[in-house]
Amino acid sequence: MPASTAVAIIGAGPAGLMLGHLLAQAGVPFVILEAQTREHVLGRIRAGVLEQGSVDLLARHGLDADLRERGLTHHGIYLQYEGQRHHIDFLDLVGRTVTVYGQQALVAHLLAEHDRIGSTIVFEAKEVQPAGVTGPHPTVSYTLEGVSHEIECDLVVGADGYHGICRRSIPAGEIEVFERSYPFGWLGILADVPPSTDDLIYALHPEGFGMHSMRSLEVSRLYVQVGPDESIDDWSDARIWDALHERLGLEGWQLQEGPITEKSVTPMRSFVTSTLQHGRMFLAGDAGHIVPPTGAKGLNSALADVAMLGQAILDHRVGDDTGLARYSDRALARQWKVQHFSQWMTEMLHVHHEVPDASARAFRYRSQVGQLDHLTGSLAARRSLAEQYAGLPFTE
Amino acid sequence: MPASTAVAIIGAGPAGLMLGHLLAQAGVPFVILEAQTREHVLGRIRAGVLEQGSVDLLARHGLDADLRERGLTHHGIYLQYEGQRHHIDFLDLVGRTVTVYGQQALVAHLLAEHDRIGSTIVFEAKEVQPAGVTGPHPTVSYTLEGVSHEIECDLVVGADGYHGICRRSIPAGEIEVFERSYPFGWLGILADVPPSTDDLIYALHPEGFGMHSMRSLEVSRLYVQVGPDESIDDWSDARIWDALHERLGLEGWQLQEGPITEKSVTPMRSFVTSTLQHGRMFLAGDAGHIVPPTGAKGLNSALADVAMLGQAILDHRVGDDTGLARYSDRALARQWKVQHFSQWMTEMLHVHHEVPDASARAFRYRSQVGQLDHLTGSLAARRSLAEQYAGLPFTE
Repeated sequence: MPASTAVAIIGAGPAGLMLGHLLAQAGVPFVILEAQTREHVLGRIRAGVLEQGSVDLLARHGLDADLRERGLTHHGIYLQYEGQRHHIDFLDLVGRTVTVYGQQALVAHLLAEHDRIGSTIVFEAKEVQPAGVTGPHPTVSYTLEGVSHEIECDLVVGADGYHGICRRSIPAGEIEVFERSYPFGWLGILADVPPSTDDLIYALHPEGFGMHSMRSLEVSRLYVQVGPDESIDDWSDARIWDALHERLGLEGWQLQEGPITEKSVTPMRSFVTSTLQHGRMFLAGDAGHIVPPTGAKGLNSALADVAMLGQAILDHRVGDDTGLARYSDRALARQWKVQHFSQWMTEMLHVHHEVPDASARAFRYRSQVGQLDHLTGSLAARRSLAEQYAGLPFTE
Repeated sequence: MPASTAVAIIGAGPAGLMLGHLLAQAGVPFVILEAQTREHVLGRIRAGVLEQGSVDLLARHGLDADLRERGLTHHGIYLQYEGQRHHIDFLDLVGRTVTVYGQQALVAHLLAEHDRIGSTIVFEAKEVQPAGVTGPHPTVSYTLEGVSHEIECDLVVGADGYHGICRRSIPAGEIEVFERSYPFGWLGILADVPPSTDDLIYALHPEGFGMHSMRSLEVSRLYVQVGPDESIDDWSDARIWDALHERLGLEGWQLQEGPITEKSVTPMRSFVTSTLQHGRMFLAGDAGHIVPPTGAKGLNSALADVAMLGQAILDHRVGDDTGLARYSDRALARQWKVQHFSQWMTEMLHVHHEVPDASARAFRYRSQVGQLDHLTGSLAARRSLAEQYAGLPFTE
């Protein structure tokens, strides 16, 4: 284990692992510290849709071999409501596509590639603590199997997620957080059954949102809107399938059931920090921002961050610090657009069961139907959706 | 005063007066009953922006002489936030324009034309009451200077506004209302000063929404967001100008002040009925739906209703009732799209001072800035806005 490096990356999720590859390919020394075990990291089930920009980034850096083999190119999505299912064709509308590819598969591939090139990734690094980041010589301390270690570095990257230490190590007066929680959660399942649809289905139904996604041609990923604090114990497999049949059902179409291999409830929230920089420490991905899952922007935002941050670090290595100085503002400007889109998709497709007044509750639902009527009927509105779903430009 | 007619129109606002002309031009007998005096009707200050479809409707029926003389064709609007002012060019984006022309001027012109052709308009008709509308022979009773009258008719049109009797005369079990109230109001002024801008300015400012509209090349119409229950007495002219300067201010641009000739506070709400038909009675305009003023859809929706209803009545006169049977569904389908647009414009441009949590409040404001950044930077998003602002198609 080196006692010093150029870049100490905290977190071996997609952001940290991807940044490691960008640095490795340019010959910049780095170390990745991860609190969890390798098995835990490989087992995390998360997002599953890559924007065109994410796919392009992976391809440009030769990290798309598995993606090309296993990823499913999707030309659009379906929007369903009031008994109609409308296809929104991204390729036709904006000339771009999205790719269904599990975050789990991406992490596995990035890790395998790090193994191949001999990157230093420390798993089960406990009590990780960045220090001195506002001075010229930051350090990151941690313990491994009870033994204390310290790494000296030039830059620290906090890619350690919403609960990570990096953002929380910034003094309260130097950072603000902006948050919004939603009155609903997503109950998500993985099922061993071929998807009943070619493209993803997003459905607004009086009972709540429903979604048919997928991981592969053999594995379906399905979601239903539930209360934010609902317990998964209250949802038997039979109840979940009943809800999915009701919300996704359409005349002449049949949802296929299969064994449920995973199920969980995730609350939905929006979260953004006021800055992604504190001295020589930079935040990327969930450490700096969280979106509700509608619109599939979490993983893609993390990759957009590290594309920008990676280039800024390379520039810094040759004496140009403008990229690092601008990173926070540029990444957050992109992020706030993405935040609005995620919020917009969420509000359009979820039912506000929590509104106490029946007239106001019905008003909301009907105005969502009006919104979907307009959206599905207007070329300009469909194009605007397609442009955002397929992804805003990445900046390297 | 005839004791019978084909169509009894309740209300001499733009909807009722316009429908009268559509009927008059086809030789269909009608009577208009209005609770207020002619002076009151002529004095009501309301909307001021006509969609392309409204202008086309007036032109097709030869009712655009004054509009052509005094209306101001606008090619777009400005969206202002965070110290930047962006022009959204409707003509360039969707090949259509809007026309600034006060509802007051439209009402005056429609009334003058009714005078010219000798239409029957009963002002100060009190205790108006439609009856028997679910049977074959509806009547409308009213009193005039204390004397009771009754008109037999074939059809009744309720163009009597949100507070009118027509909608309220429908039994509770036969109609539902859907409503949303907003936590803000508009303080609006008329000022005798040439507008300081060529196109309308919609501004999001941390203190709240601000808007620069106009009535003519000599009269400015200006608005600031206030609390929904705020008293106009708390707003001196000086305080209003201060708020306008702050919210609309931009480096290198100066808002011109002038004598304020009218000021008032209007709460903002959305409202839609479940149906615009009860037997032989049909609702049009504010009697059936209200939008918040952002986006200028109230008057235009009323004209879209009567364009559709007028044609349906003409078809009915030659024995084809399909138009009347479909009127409510078709007008409401258009209306829900308009409702969503009005709500969307409102949410994008107003500040949610009422959100108690500071982080959630700041999240909302920043996500609105993200939305505006995306909107002003995206051709597809600007086109979608332009298409809706310039107006969805009218159907006659």
